[in-house]
Order: sequence, then C-alpha cells, then structure tokens
Amino acid sequence: MKLLEDRIRQDGIVAAGDILRVDSFLNHQIDIGLMDVLAGEFYRLFYGNRIDKVVTVEASGIAVAAFTARKFNVPLVFAKKAKTLNISSDYYVADCYSYTHAIAGKVMISKNYLNEGEHVLIIDDFLANGQATLSLLNLCEQAGAIPVGVGIMVEKSYQPGRGYLEEKGIRVESLARVASMDPETGVHFVGE
Amino acid sequence: MKLLEDRIRQDGIVAAGDILRVDSFLNHQIDIGLMDVLAGEFYRLFYGNRIDKVVTVEASGIAVAAFTARKFNVPLVFAKKAKTLNISSDYYVADCYSYTHAIAGKVMISKNYLNEGEHVLIIDDFLANGQATLSLLNLCEQAGAIPVGVGIMVEKSYQPGRGYLEEKGIRVESLARVASMDPETGVHFVGE
Repeated sequence: MKLLEDRIRQDGIVAAGDILRVDSFLNHQIDIGLMDVLAGEFYRLFYGNRIDKVVTVEASGIAVAAFTARKFNVPLVFAKKAKTLNISSDYYVADCYSYTHAIAGKVMISKNYLNEGEHVLIIDDFLANGQATLSLLNLCEQAGAIPVGVGIMVEKSYQPGRGYLEEKGIRVESLARVASMDPETGVHFVGE
Repeated sequence: MKLLEDRIRQDGIVAAGDILRVDSFLNHQIDIGLMDVLAGEFYRLFYGNRIDKVVTVEASGIAVAAFTARKFNVPLVFAKKAKTLNISSDYYVADCYSYTHAIAGKVMISKNYLNEGEHVLIIDDFLANGQATLSLLNLCEQAGAIPVGVGIMVEKSYQPGRGYLEEKGIRVESLARVASMDPETGVHFVGE
C-alpha cells in the first residue's frame, strides 16, 4: 500500500541492528487517521470472508485491530502477554519467543473468548520472524477456531515469518513489505 | 452513562476480592461498537476544549482511547509499562504501583511524543486507586504538557482515585461510577 510505504519512507528511522523505528506514527505515538485507513484496507482485502472475530496481541497492534474489528462489526480479542508463572487453566497459552527483546514469553487468551468453529482474522503491526503470529495461530488451533488470514501493517520480507505462515496454508496480507533496509540507504520495498 | 451501566449489570461479574470482571466486553474481548459509542461520549463531554493528543497506558485502554483520538482527530500516545531496568534517557518515566497485581511498576513515554504546552486528554479503562492515572499525569508534568481532563470507562467511586485527581484540580469524567458491589447483590452505581 503506497500510502503506508510513503509514510515509512518519510517518518521511519532505520537504526543499527535491523531496527525499523516507526514509533512516531505506528506503535507508540499513533496516527489514528492512518490506522483507520489501514483498517479499511484490511476490510477491502478480506471482504467476502466470514469473519467472526479479530484477534491481536497486546499492545501495539490493538489500535489498528480495533478499527479493523469496527469495519467488520465483530468483537476484538487481544491476547495477553503472560507476566506470571501462575496461569489459570481458564486460558489457552502458547509460547512466544521475542527476538526483539530476546526473551521467551507466553501469550494467552481466555477459553471463553476463542471458540471452536469461529472464523478469526489475525491482525498485528509487524511480521518478521513470525513468532507472535504463530503463537496466535497456536491459540486458534487449541480452541478449534479457523484462521481466515493474517493482516500485517509492516512485514520484513527478508525474514522468515511469511514463509512459516504460508507453509501452514495461511493467507498473509501485509500493507508494506520491506525488501531491505539500511541506516545509510533507507528502506526498500518489495516490488520496487 | 446508562448504556454502560446496563451492560455492566448484564455482563459484568463481581468476584471475591473487590474484582469486577468485564473481560467479556471491555478489556480482553472488546465490544468494539460499544467502544466507539463510549468514545463519542468522551467527545461530547470534552467538546470545546483544545485537545492536541490523547494519552493512555497499555494495554486495555488502547481501544477506547483510539476511538476517542479518532473523534478529536488527534494522535494517540500510549505509555509503555517498563519491562527492564535499562530505561533510556529518551523517556519520561513515572512510578506506577499496581494494586491489582501488587507490584511496583513504571510507565514511560518517549520525550519526542509528549511536549511542553500540549493539551492532553487522558483516557483509561478503570479508575480505582488512581495510580495509573496519576503516573500519566506525572509524565505530563515532566513534559510540561497540560492535562485537560481524564476520561474513564469504569470508576470504583468508593476508592480514592477520583479524590486524588480532584485534589490536583483535574477534571474527571467517568462513564460508569460504581458506588458499591458485592458477589451476592451485584453492582450499584452512584446516583441510584
């Protein structure tokens, strides 16, 4: 989506260590009008599919996921990052390794809010190694929910996340696909 | 706001230990249409004030804060809960004790996204002891930002949070004010 690519070129900062900082408009300070438009694009892309629920993981995907759920007129469920060792049996739990923070974490959703046969659209801000998205798919699998697809704002296409998802037969729609990036030369997108 | 009070009566669960569970529609699974309507009510209440930015804290206030920011057509900034001891000097940081989890935490906002003279509307899901809201006010104070007011979905009016805020001269607008609650008799609201 050219709108998002242009915005990343304009306001994104490529830092050492393969870091793309978009915290001025996407994941700390959030350009809310942009989120609404990006949610509209997810609606366009997944229009015609049965979608019962939008699922994301806290925290930085919640805003765009909320607008997406609004477009489809369905509830939003956000998976919580488990902070304690005592996780109640009322939750589906999946491992989620964070490369960004280099920590093994867990994500969880109450068994009340993810149900067998529900058609779920997964929305998240970033796709790189795919660990967060895979953990959400794992939760869907435990619940017997059916993943309709995955909508991502920014994909690092040179990392293996998309491949892992496609191997599972999951449809992936990313609004900006970074082909390469470098602090000197900036960001280049797939198809340029 | 009767709409929200009725929904809490219908779907809220009062559990032992002064817990009001609203995770079926407000802070885990989220009724997105309801959030949009509640955001409209915050818009009505604070209409006429200069508002440059909506500020909340991750994670469960983000959805309603996002819709509120959309109404005012301003950016949303969400404070992050600090997870590490290494907090960069690029952030304003405030202590935030959580009574719910009985842990001392910290919240932080990048110095780039909270600025001197900005008029800020603080939005959050719950107000009880007021610690989260006070920590956001502390961040505003450090930045020299001007808090226009605080919009809360559910206030536990028998706890001291509102008092602490009003002592500071902060306008507080809560959409549902719980006067008392009990697992046997349910929830009672202020003014009933």
